[in-house]
Amino acid sequence: MKITSVKGTLDYLPKETALRDYLQNTILDTYRSCGFERITTPILEDIENLDKSEGGENLNLIFKVMKRGEKFTEAIANGKFNELSDIGLRYDLTLPLSRYYACNKDKLSTPFKVIQVDRVFRAERPQKGRLREFVQCDIDILGSESINCEIELIDTTAKALLRVGIDNFKVKINDRRILRGIITGAGFEESECDSVCITFDKLDKVGIEGVKAELEEKGFKQEAIDKFIEFVSVKEFNLENASKFVEDKEAVNNLATIISTVKSLTNGKYDIVYDPSLVRGQGYYTGTVFEVESLDFHGAIAGGGRYDNLIGKFLGQKVPAVGFSIGFERIAGILLEKGASNQASPKRIALIYNQNEVLEAIKKADELRKEYYVTLFEMPKKLGKFYGKLEEQNYYGCLILGEGNEMKIFG
Amino acid sequence: MKITSVKGTLDYLPKETALRDYLQNTILDTYRSCGFERITTPILEDIENLDKSEGGENLNLIFKVMKRGEKFTEAIANGKFNELSDIGLRYDLTLPLSRYYACNKDKLSTPFKVIQVDRVFRAERPQKGRLREFVQCDIDILGSESINCEIELIDTTAKALLRVGIDNFKVKINDRRILRGIITGAGFEESECDSVCITFDKLDKVGIEGVKAELEEKGFKQEAIDKFIEFVSVKEFNLENASKFVEDKEAVNNLATIISTVKSLTNGKYDIVYDPSLVRGQGYYTGTVFEVESLDFHGAIAGGGRYDNLIGKFLGQKVPAVGFSIGFERIAGILLEKGASNQASPKRIALIYNQNEVLEAIKKADELRKEYYVTLFEMPKKLGKFYGKLEEQNYYGCLILGEGNEMKIFG
Repeated sequence: MKITSVKGTLDYLPKETALRDYLQNTILDTYRSCGFERITTPILEDIENLDKSEGGENLNLIFKVMKRGEKFTEAIANGKFNELSDIGLRYDLTLPLSRYYACNKDKLSTPFKVIQVDRVFRAERPQKGRLREFVQCDIDILGSESINCEIELIDTTAKALLRVGIDNFKVKINDRRILRGIITGAGFEESECDSVCITFDKLDKVGIEGVKAELEEKGFKQEAIDKFIEFVSVKEFNLENASKFVEDKEAVNNLATIISTVKSLTNGKYDIVYDPSLVRGQGYYTGTVFEVESLDFHGAIAGGGRYDNLIGKFLGQKVPAVGFSIGFERIAGILLEKGASNQASPKRIALIYNQNEVLEAIKKADELRKEYYVTLFEMPKKLGKFYGKLEEQNYYGCLILGEGNEMKIFG
Repeated sequence: MKITSVKGTLDYLPKETALRDYLQNTILDTYRSCGFERITTPILEDIENLDKSEGGENLNLIFKVMKRGEKFTEAIANGKFNELSDIGLRYDLTLPLSRYYACNKDKLSTPFKVIQVDRVFRAERPQKGRLREFVQCDIDILGSESINCEIELIDTTAKALLRVGIDNFKVKINDRRILRGIITGAGFEESECDSVCITFDKLDKVGIEGVKAELEEKGFKQEAIDKFIEFVSVKEFNLENASKFVEDKEAVNNLATIISTVKSLTNGKYDIVYDPSLVRGQGYYTGTVFEVESLDFHGAIAGGGRYDNLIGKFLGQKVPAVGFSIGFERIAGILLEKGASNQASPKRIALIYNQNEVLEAIKKADELRKEYYVTLFEMPKKLGKFYGKLEEQNYYGCLILGEGNEMKIFG
């Protein structure tokens, strides 16, 4: 039998799990303190719900669960090989949340400020840093169109990051409507917007020349390409430049208000900037999109945006919604590298006893448990070697059961 | 699109999730306090590992994940319909733990005292009370044959149950070796033991006559059946009666020691008894098996046993192991019915503000967050109705932003 975990999944050691639990609990407490409430949705989701969602590239990454019993044999017998699955594993927490809200909204507050911290699954090609089973940490506000939601989500997410010790970051923000205004303003068709966006999203990685080359490769009109490149090559392409391309000024004014309000809340601990090339992959975003970029570690550590049409697909009535998701695995990786640990929990000590004294040992341990986490060990053959192992496992100290024995403190 | 969750899975409301989180954290803290360490293993597990495990009836309940891309189309093209899956969802936490230990044992303590709290999946026929996606809470001790492990697991599990408010229960214990001794002693063949066990396991439900009838139905030798029924019909079938059937007295002596030691630890809060008909379903148990029975609510709320051969299948060398699993869903259900809630977390209040005062509102909320969990709400149209909703959602109080305003306390 195979002893390694499935490709793209990880076994977490006790030390790693302790850090992940601490991290999750700290983020959860920050979110709860800010008035968000946690819910739990199933990992299993109807395959049609998943397939028909607008998850962008994630739709190609769905793990499909096979039908069982007669339904499976029937599908095989009838050669319906595209109907072998009835359930899938969710690829994010936003689609299940939309279904959940549609199903349970009468029992929930309005607006509904919600936390989800849970696992998602994506059949990514296994490679370093790409997990197939990982944790996402989302907060969402459902049922309000107010830009105060965006402000609160950014403020709350930043609070959580700062509290777990991630401090060198900036928030980037954009609005899909502005992005579309610029693209169509340059002469692209509405229908070409998504493809142009996907290329423009790579600006950070390939530079303006790289973007131009890829747009040309894709065979768009040269005139539109040239105009677009000219627009966005303006040395500091700011909201003022952007506003020229958008008829409805609401999106521009909103961004300006969000940015100035958040700036007043940061206490100088982080910055928020308009980023004209920020796209975010998901197809369901309709307005603002935002991202947290770590300045110590290349890349995004949180991302989100407004998705005003997704819940309507389940409910048949429009429910505005906006969410922000922390890349939990990314943060956990950064903190593990930094050597962070859970300072809050009690110290661990070992209580060593002779095999026939288990009753006394448990009673003694219970006394010590008022102050420590206490592990019982039967007397080992080689005590010196055993001490070494306890130290390796980050035990704070060790006590041998018996009157008059004193606790040995390590390190 | 479908708005209900997949059959056999549940959406949890904020109140339910808060209780489940409180419950999980309390159990986790009890386990950690007793020196156990938490690990995390993936939900996805190699399909062959699952299929070849000795999970008893659970093997028929595995959710299988379809292969992807070329591997899927190849299997279809070649008509290999029993090779369509490469991964499955774990049906318990014991099999993944065994694989994990085999893979990571050099980095772990010996003996390894381990916690797992996580989801498992079983394709049960959907029916009331039977979930297809649910949480298990396990503690295990790997690498020790000492019966002190059994004592510690029972003591620790009971501590967790008592701490979350489950107090009217008893622990039942048996040993597979004694059970086999009685069965073969009555004249059944070694190979018939499992089938006899499955029937005998139903004693609680069908009574001694029901057991007899089912054994006859199964076509076993009448002589063996009669002798067996005679044995176990002894008014109080105790360990002394049992010892007559077992050549190797170790199992009997062990049970006696475990029972007497645990009795000294209970402080009269619960009882532990020898139960000759306790079987526990899993095929991998080799020695002691035990179960916690709730006396308020019919049925088992925790179960476990010794499985000394499972890890060896991965490692090629024998590693003794014993575990105890709390039925988390069962406990959560009982506490929810009781109206239990998380007393430990801060009170929730609502801070109501005018739409254009979000900056001041967040600053005021941050002050209040030193004491409360604070949710921001923009001023609603109908304040009276809104108060009613806040009360419904268990808010402690409400404050309208503005100088001189006082907090309104509900209830």
